[in-house]
Formats: sequence, C-alpha cells, structure tokens
Amino acid sequence: MKHTYEYPRAALTVDCVVFGFDDTELKVLLIERGIAPFKGQWALPGGFVRVDETLDEAARRELMEETGLKKLFLEQLYTFSSVDRDPRERVISVAYYALTKPADHRTQATTDAADARWFPIRQIPALAFDHADIFATALQRLRGKLRYEPIGFELLPPKFTLSQLQQLYEAVMDTELDKRNFRKKVLSYGLLLPLDETHREGAHRPAQLFRFDPVRYEKLKKKGFHFEL
Amino acid sequence: MKHTYEYPRAALTVDCVVFGFDDTELKVLLIERGIAPFKGQWALPGGFVRVDETLDEAARRELMEETGLKKLFLEQLYTFSSVDRDPRERVISVAYYALTKPADHRTQATTDAADARWFPIRQIPALAFDHADIFATALQRLRGKLRYEPIGFELLPPKFTLSQLQQLYEAVMDTELDKRNFRKKVLSYGLLLPLDETHREGAHRPAQLFRFDPVRYEKLKKKGFHFEL
Repeated sequence: MKHTYEYPRAALTVDCVVFGFDDTELKVLLIERGIAPFKGQWALPGGFVRVDETLDEAARRELMEETGLKKLFLEQLYTFSSVDRDPRERVISVAYYALTKPADHRTQATTDAADARWFPIRQIPALAFDHADIFATALQRLRGKLRYEPIGFELLPPKFTLSQLQQLYEAVMDTELDKRNFRKKVLSYGLLLPLDETHREGAHRPAQLFRFDPVRYEKLKKKGFHFEL
Repeated sequence: MKHTYEYPRAALTVDCVVFGFDDTELKVLLIERGIAPFKGQWALPGGFVRVDETLDEAARRELMEETGLKKLFLEQLYTFSSVDRDPRERVISVAYYALTKPADHRTQATTDAADARWFPIRQIPALAFDHADIFATALQRLRGKLRYEPIGFELLPPKFTLSQLQQLYEAVMDTELDKRNFRKKVLSYGLLLPLDETHREGAHRPAQLFRFDPVRYEKLKKKGFHFEL
C-alpha cells in the first residue's frame, strides 16, 4: 500500500546515545550497520519511527531490537535536521541519550545491526551519518547534568566506594580530581549514606561502602546544585 | 503534485514559546488562529516545516510570518509526539523557545494568524492542541536556565537598575526575593558593571544603572553557576 500526501514529507528516525560506566571507563554502545547506507560502519542504534507510536516508544523499541537493552534511563536530547544528513533522502532524527551499567546487560545485535559493542568514549570509530555530532551533543548534556544534578544512581552499582564515585566524575568530565577536595565536597551534600560494609580491592586497605539516600537524591535533583570541578 | 511513500509519514511542525519581559511582568506571545482546527482560539505561533529547510529555519520563518518577529534569541526546546495531539492527523511538533523584549518589536498578525498579542504568563487563555504542555515545558526550561546561567541580556534593556534585575528574577521564578540578599548575591558574580548614570522613577531616589560585563557574562555562561533563591 502506498501513502500519498499533498506536500513532500521528511522521514523521521530516532537515534540513541547509550552511556555505560564500567568501573573506570565511560563507554558508549554502538552498532555495526548491516544494511546500506554506511553498511559495515559503526553507528548509534536507532531507526525509523512508526506513525502510530510516540518518539519515546520508538527509541525504546529500536534499542530493544538492535541491542537487546530494555528498562534503562532514557531522555530526549535534541532533534537534528541538517538538510543533507542522510544520503537516501530527507530524514530528520530525534536523538535520545540513555544511562546504564554495561554489566547489567548482555547486548545482542539483531534486525538491521550486524554487531553491537561498547566503545570507550576516547576510542570511538568514525560514525555513520551525523552521529559524531549527536554523540558530542549527548556528552555535553551528560557533563552538564553531572554538574547540576546527582546522576550516579543510573551509572553506579547500588553500593560503591568514594573512589568509584570519583572515577565516574573523572571519566565523564575527562579530568583528574583532587581526592581530598572531592571527598569533602561530595560528602557535604548529605547525599551518601555510609554502610556497615567495606570493599577490598587488591592490596589496598578496605574502603567504606556507601549508597545514595533516595529521599535526599530526589530533593537535590529538583533543587539542583552546582558541583564546581 | 502528489508525494507518495511506502510507509505512512507524520507531518512535522514547529511551535514557538516567545517570552518577553516588560519591566515587571513576564509575558508570552500568542496568536489567534485564523483557520481550523481551533479557529478563533489562542495558540503558540508555528506551522508546518518545509522539506528543504532545517527546523531552526522553519521556526524563524514561522515567527516572522505569524508575528513579524525576527532576530531574536531562539533555542530548540523539545519534540512533542503524543499520538492524538492534533485532530487532523499524525503531527509531530518540534518546540522552540525565544527570549526578547516586547518593546523592541511591533508584533503583527499575518498569514494564518488573525491576531498576535502578549499575555502575562499568569493570564494565559485556554490554548489549542497540546500547547499548554509545550508552554509549561518552556517555562520550566527558562527557570532552570535562570538558575544556572545569566540570561538577562536577552530580556533586559542594555542599562538597568538592580530593581529591574530583581523584578526579572521574581517574575520568572514567581516568587518574592529579599532585596538585600539578592543584591549581595548578584553583585558577587562580578557580572555587572556600574555606570556613571542613574535612573529616577517617580518619587524614588535615583537608582544606580548597570550593564552586563560581556566577557564575564560569556565566561559564566560556559562555566555555569547556581543562583540559589
């Protein structure tokens, strides 16, 4: 069946920047394109929006189909509309970004994707379409978020050490932080609850484990703060 | 000429939330719809995106056509995609928000708009489509922005008193602020340059005029801050 309109219409896609944090590294999930254009090249997971679904639904469906990921934190990022961004025809893409823990998921390539893999954000291959721009916009948003809101819930395990939290901040902001300053500042928000447990890694002495205080977390998320690095 | 596609396609529109600040009140620019659906009802200015223009271009064109406004601060806000948001057919809308000074422009209704008028944000009439949701999202974004970035440039005259700046903050955040605290805090950012001029209003004693320090303004815009109210 063909669909006819009085004026030409752009096709609409969703593309997803999925961030994961693996102990020390910030990573992004990419798929290898199994079909033209850009066949064999790495790209953000995504695809065409169906006319009877919302954009959020399309993003979750495409992530599930192309990578096996589901139930993750997902937010709309920005809509990209350069006139020549797709060699096939006029395609406008609504970008999303997601936060998750790579260890929680066994990723799997399906449908249009030949492969799905996590890449450290400093070792990202050349990407199809304008996906490098979309990725850069998502990283900027993640950095802004980390400064003004607590977002560790989505990226850290339920129990974590202050070193792990510092590594997350360092990985996202791509900078080294002073250990004493970081601890003092991060504890001053009253966001972390010390647990009656420690974590031992290698020859280091056991480190105190913490968890987030969910009530305080939600409150700070609304009120905002400014984490000056 | 008809345009035919293999799969059904949504139509794409842009809608713009234009904020203006008039001395003491935060206002929004609305148009009265001249055509169905919602004919005679107030709505955000906007319209269909052409297949050969970017979304930014479409937003600026529609604003110009429907309200006569041009050259104003304009940023993409969010893309709205509820399946039943338009009674005609499947329409997805990319929302923008803009900041301006109402006094700078003579608004004029043209093309599809029967009238264009500034409304104080507390006295907004019932809006067409899901435009009340779009407006609420834009107001939330403006409030977030005011907290983390200086935005006065776009909304205030080049020279202003601290009272005017406080009125802007009070109008946007919909709250009363303590005068002494506000002055102390706002001056602490080093963002304001005192001028060798005063402004006299009614029987009040003359008030010092300020302007923004553009270098410091750009720096703080990048670095961000947190204006706790």
